[in-house]
Amino acid sequence: MEKIRLGVAGIGNMGTAHIKKVINGKCPEFTVTAVADMNTERFAPLKEICGEDLACFDNAMDMLDSGLIDACIIATPHYDHCKLAIACMERGIHVMLEKPAGVYAKEVRQMNAVADAHPEVVFGMMFNQRTNHIYRKVKELIDSGKYGQIRRTNWIVTDWYRSQVYYDSGSWRATWAGEGGGVLLNQCPHQLDLWQWMCGMPVKVHGHLLYGKWHDIEVEDDVTAYVEYENGATGVFISTTGDGCGSNRLEIQMDKAKIIALEDKLELYEFDVSVPEFDKTNTRPFGHPNATYCEVETDGENLQHVAVLNAWAGAILRGESLIANGKEGVNGLTISNAIHLSSWLDKTITLPMDDELFHQELSKRIATSRAKTNVKAIVADTESSYGTTPTGK
Amino acid sequence: MEKIRLGVAGIGNMGTAHIKKVINGKCPEFTVTAVADMNTERFAPLKEICGEDLACFDNAMDMLDSGLIDACIIATPHYDHCKLAIACMERGIHVMLEKPAGVYAKEVRQMNAVADAHPEVVFGMMFNQRTNHIYRKVKELIDSGKYGQIRRTNWIVTDWYRSQVYYDSGSWRATWAGEGGGVLLNQCPHQLDLWQWMCGMPVKVHGHLLYGKWHDIEVEDDVTAYVEYENGATGVFISTTGDGCGSNRLEIQMDKAKIIALEDKLELYEFDVSVPEFDKTNTRPFGHPNATYCEVETDGENLQHVAVLNAWAGAILRGESLIANGKEGVNGLTISNAIHLSSWLDKTITLPMDDELFHQELSKRIATSRAKTNVKAIVADTESSYGTTPTGK
Repeated sequence: MEKIRLGVAGIGNMGTAHIKKVINGKCPEFTVTAVADMNTERFAPLKEICGEDLACFDNAMDMLDSGLIDACIIATPHYDHCKLAIACMERGIHVMLEKPAGVYAKEVRQMNAVADAHPEVVFGMMFNQRTNHIYRKVKELIDSGKYGQIRRTNWIVTDWYRSQVYYDSGSWRATWAGEGGGVLLNQCPHQLDLWQWMCGMPVKVHGHLLYGKWHDIEVEDDVTAYVEYENGATGVFISTTGDGCGSNRLEIQMDKAKIIALEDKLELYEFDVSVPEFDKTNTRPFGHPNATYCEVETDGENLQHVAVLNAWAGAILRGESLIANGKEGVNGLTISNAIHLSSWLDKTITLPMDDELFHQELSKRIATSRAKTNVKAIVADTESSYGTTPTGK
Repeated sequence: MEKIRLGVAGIGNMGTAHIKKVINGKCPEFTVTAVADMNTERFAPLKEICGEDLACFDNAMDMLDSGLIDACIIATPHYDHCKLAIACMERGIHVMLEKPAGVYAKEVRQMNAVADAHPEVVFGMMFNQRTNHIYRKVKELIDSGKYGQIRRTNWIVTDWYRSQVYYDSGSWRATWAGEGGGVLLNQCPHQLDLWQWMCGMPVKVHGHLLYGKWHDIEVEDDVTAYVEYENGATGVFISTTGDGCGSNRLEIQMDKAKIIALEDKLELYEFDVSVPEFDKTNTRPFGHPNATYCEVETDGENLQHVAVLNAWAGAILRGESLIANGKEGVNGLTISNAIHLSSWLDKTITLPMDDELFHQELSKRIATSRAKTNVKAIVADTESSYGTTPTGK
C-alpha cells in the first residue's frame, strides 16, 4: 500500500506528539516526509527520530509548495490555522487542523467556504476528545430520544491548571496578538466542541470572564458562561487554568433522565415517568418521579489522536468517515467568541452573533496587546497536561 | 422547671411540623399554648394532638396580645414575617423566624433595628441546615485558615422538584403578591444562608432567571447566579424546582485544597503546596501541585429543626448560643434580592445594593401579580420535600 506522505506545520508540543505516533507505528498509513517551523532549532532532534531524509522548512508555505506531502497536520499558533488550511485546500492537500479551528468565527467561515469549493480535499478537525468512550456514550443516550429533551447542561471542567512558567514558555502564549485569548482558545476548544456535539448549539450566551486573575497574562484565565438553548433549557460552562486540583463533571438533566459524566465513569438516573408527564398527573404536593441509578457500561475505548489520524487516513484512502469534519470547528469557536464578546460588551449575545463586531473588538485588543519579555521556549511533554485529579481517587 | 409557653403563628406545613416536635417530646423546654392561623379549619386537628386547652386565634396579633405566650415561632406566608417579628419584639416575646427573614432586605433591616432596640428578646432564624454535620465541617475547614483563601465556589442544588399540584395548593404560593418570588424565596433560603455562612458574602451578583419555565407560575423556577467575592474569587449557584432528579453538590476551590460537599459525604483534596506558592516556584510547563484525596469524617449529627428550637430554648432560659442569630437572615436574602434585581434590570448588581430600588421593582410586580384560581389548600407532610436523589445511590 502506498503511504500518505504527511507534513506537519508547527512542531511544538502537539506537532511533535503527532509525529511520534506515526513513527511509533500507531498510524501506519502515514509516513512523515516533511515538517515546517520558524524555530529551526527544532529540526535536529526530529531528524534523529524521523531520519535524515526528513525535509525541514522554516516556512510552512514552502512545505506546501514542495510537492513532498499529500496531507498536512496544522499545529501552529492559532492565528495561522485558517490561512494554512486554506493554502492546503487550494493545493489539493488534505488537512488535519488542530483546535481551535481559528481565532474568530469570521475567518473560519471563510475557510469553510474554501473547503466547500474543494470537495476532493479531506478536511478534519483534531477533536480527539470525541473518541472518548464516556462522551460517545453520552451522545448516544441523548440522541436515542428515549429521555426526551434536555432541560439543563452543567459542565465544570477546571482541571487545566497551568503555572506561570507555562505562560512564559512561548511569546505567543496567552496574548491577544499571539493566541487571541486564554483558556477559552487554548484549553477549552475540546469541551466547547463536545458540549455542542452532545447537547446542541445554544441560542443565547452570557460570559463572565476574569482576565489575568490567576497569572500574569492579559487574557482570560477564569470562565463562567451561562447559555440558553432553543427549547429554553439552560446551561453553564466553567473553566480555568487557576485551580490547583480541578474537576471535570458534566451533568445533563433531561425530561426522563439525569446523566453525569465524570473522568472515568458515566452515571445515569432513569426516571419511571418523564417530568412533563409526571407534572400533569401527580396529585401529591411533594411528589416526584422515582429515579433508578445505574453506572452505564461503555466500550472503554479512548483512542484519542491516534483514532482521529487513522480515521483521516481511512477517509483519504477509502472514503471512510472522519471523527470530526473540519467544518464543525466553527461551532465551538462560535460559543467561545460569544463568551468573549459578551464579557467585553457586558451583555448577553444572541446567536447567530455579529462576527464582524467580534473581529473589531478583538482587533482593538490585539492593537494594544502587551509584548512578552523573558520568554523561555520549551517543547514539553503534553502527557501530564490533562487530569490533575490524583489517580488515587 | 417552668416551660416556655410557645405560640405558633401559621400552622401550615412547617408550623404543624414544629408543633409535632414539641408534642413528641423532642423539645422538652417548650409547651405549645397557642396557635394562630387565618384558616380556622386547621384548629380542630391540632386540638386533637395538643389538647382542648390550646388557644386558637384567627389573627396572629390577638395571640401576641393574649398574654398566653413567652415565645413565638413565625411560620406564616413570607410577607408577614418581619411585621410579626417586630410585633413580638415590641411585646417582649422571643422570636423564632422561619426562612426567609422577609421578602425584601429593606424590611429586614428595619426588623433588625427593632431587634437591636430589644436586647431582652431572643431572636433566632430557623436556619436548620446549619446543624448539618457536612456543612458544619466545611465551615470548620474553611475557617481553620490552613487552606488559604477561597478561589471558587460552585453549588448546584437542584433537588427541589415540585410539580404543578404543589403550586396549586396555596393561593399565596409562587406569586409576586403572595410570596415575593419563587424558588429563591421558598426553597433556596437555606442554601443561600449556608453559602454566605461558609464562604462569605459576595460583592457582585449577576442573576440569570427563568420565570414560569417549568410550571404555570409567574415567578422564577430556574436560577443561575454568578457572583464575585472581595478577593476576586468567583462563585456559581444553580437551583430549580423543575429537575426530576436534581443534584446537591457544593465545590469549594481554595489555595491549598478542594472541598466537595455531597448529600452524605465530604470529600477533601489537600495539595502539598498552595497554588500561589507552587506558581512561584514550579519550573515544569505542565507541572501542578500534588493532591491527596480523603473522605472527611464528621460527627454525623444532623439534628435540624429540633436543634434550632432547643438552642433557642437554651438561649431564652440560660443565655446559651443560638444556631443562627435572627439578624443574620438579611445576608442570604440580600443575595436573593440581588439575583432578582440583576435579572430584572439585566445587569450586574454591586453590593451593598440599592434596597429601595429593589423594593420599587418588586412592588411593580406585586401590582400586576396574577390572581390564582382553582387553589386546593392541602397541609402536606414535608418529610419528602427534600432529597429526590434515590437512596439506592
